[in-house]
Amino acid sequence: MAEINASALRAGNRRALAKAITLSESSLPEHREQAQTLLEQLLPDTGRSVRIGISGVPGVGKSTFIEAFGQLLLREGKKLAVLAVDPSSPVAGGSIMGDKTRMEELARQEHVFIRPSPSGGALGGVAQKTRESLLLCEAAGYDVVIVETVGVGQSEYQVAGMVDFFMLLMLPGGGDELQGIKKGIVELAHALVINKADGDGERMASATQSQYQSALSLLRSESHWSVEVRKCSALRNQGIDDIWAMVKRFVEITTENGFFEHQRTGQNLDWMRQLVRDMLDARLASSEAVRSQLPGLEEAVEQQRMTPFNAARQVLELLD
Amino acid sequence: MAEINASALRAGNRRALAKAITLSESSLPEHREQAQTLLEQLLPDTGRSVRIGISGVPGVGKSTFIEAFGQLLLREGKKLAVLAVDPSSPVAGGSIMGDKTRMEELARQEHVFIRPSPSGGALGGVAQKTRESLLLCEAAGYDVVIVETVGVGQSEYQVAGMVDFFMLLMLPGGGDELQGIKKGIVELAHALVINKADGDGERMASATQSQYQSALSLLRSESHWSVEVRKCSALRNQGIDDIWAMVKRFVEITTENGFFEHQRTGQNLDWMRQLVRDMLDARLASSEAVRSQLPGLEEAVEQQRMTPFNAARQVLELLD
Repeated sequence: MAEINASALRAGNRRALAKAITLSESSLPEHREQAQTLLEQLLPDTGRSVRIGISGVPGVGKSTFIEAFGQLLLREGKKLAVLAVDPSSPVAGGSIMGDKTRMEELARQEHVFIRPSPSGGALGGVAQKTRESLLLCEAAGYDVVIVETVGVGQSEYQVAGMVDFFMLLMLPGGGDELQGIKKGIVELAHALVINKADGDGERMASATQSQYQSALSLLRSESHWSVEVRKCSALRNQGIDDIWAMVKRFVEITTENGFFEHQRTGQNLDWMRQLVRDMLDARLASSEAVRSQLPGLEEAVEQQRMTPFNAARQVLELLD
Repeated sequence: MAEINASALRAGNRRALAKAITLSESSLPEHREQAQTLLEQLLPDTGRSVRIGISGVPGVGKSTFIEAFGQLLLREGKKLAVLAVDPSSPVAGGSIMGDKTRMEELARQEHVFIRPSPSGGALGGVAQKTRESLLLCEAAGYDVVIVETVGVGQSEYQVAGMVDFFMLLMLPGGGDELQGIKKGIVELAHALVINKADGDGERMASATQSQYQSALSLLRSESHWSVEVRKCSALRNQGIDDIWAMVKRFVEITTENGFFEHQRTGQNLDWMRQLVRDMLDARLASSEAVRSQLPGLEEAVEQQRMTPFNAARQVLELLD
């Protein structure tokens, strides 16, 4: 792979950025080396964007929302990058969220960079790669980086762990069991945004909003920020400015009280510790002895023939 | 330490049980060996109890509740063991929850075994030891094992990970922000129980109950069981039978649909995997090189002089 021009990337050259991300997404060891060297060079230029995580089940209107949200940012002269974390993504580009038909308008804009979900596989998986892409986008001068994910599995946790502000898009009528939030996710969100508050949806959206407001009032929230519940219509471009204003207020308040930096530092250390774990797990996984004997040990634990402690100890002995 | 008589323990000998737990709580390697050998011997005799986790902030009335709950179980001819997980416990016995004045009546009963929180320290910490104590109590023929914890820190997660049914005790007026549940905990609970529904508290308890009922209706729950919100007065012994009936129904339903066994197997495998991680972490922690250089690497990550990936890789290289 060709040498990446760091200064071209710093200058905002889209091709240089795209190539750098492709490099960091590569599973080839020599590519990872190059990517890490490049990232290290660029680290001083990172960290200047507002990192926004957006999650929501398919059909909630994420693309339409980001389209409208992005247009607003562009009008304010901001540069926007949109990254996707799609655990269902089988290969780079090919995924629910990767298709080119999404965010058409936005994709055409000079100051917008859209990147579909990388494929998993490599160390740390999709999350690790997306974190690196995020840093690369920052080095390339993007003011806002949106990390988008579908509301399934563990991806919300991963995304919430790499952004400053995490919002959950919802449909009107969320009271319905079928649309309920996965409980753990409430804990992650800085805001619940009820989209499609238009036409027949409008009244229901207001009802949903107050339902969730009272529900959340029963759940303790971090002292630095209490979860807000908003409604909007991305389709009609209503309430979007409200939501951007809320994010800006969050940044202001948490920068003021120091939580903003505190959270990012914590995220970086968590990321590092997670990688240590991933690398140790990778050693286990790549050990022939472990691979061949782990199933038997797990079966022994399942059938209560062996204590988890002894099974774990044997796994470690296999490593040596 | 004297040899533990496994058959005496199986026969329900309290001294043998107490000695076995002390052995498993010991940090001395040779004691751990003996404890693991004993556990392996006893494994076939474990698993026959109903494991109930009870959490709640200090002052919610856990002891009074367990006292009343336990008396009910005794009237049904059950044998009850009560274990405590108290992360604040500095040394075995010495802790918020360890003091002898608690559950006085219950403590006097022949068919009740009460054990204060072990001290942490050893591999896996308090949770690991409590899990082993739980198995030992089962081998000694206890029909119900209650694992109690104060509603602080990570202890609820640990307790929820070792019991069949996890209930959260609350005070009337939980709507009040100050008393709100930690958001993540809702996810763990099979039931919210509002205690002190007596005297002036009665009306407020009913209000709190319906508030939480509607709040929870907005949160998706596992298909096999949806969280129940009950109220009771442990002091006046009202509604306690209701709660025991609920637990029994849970066991019935989930045994029927297979979730009961499924959950326990999953917990054992998670426990094993966690122990593998703990043992790997212990290796890191015991490495002189890692101990001396980790702070510097973390600082480099904090100050964005190094990528988390490179820092993590260096940590692993220090291990070799």
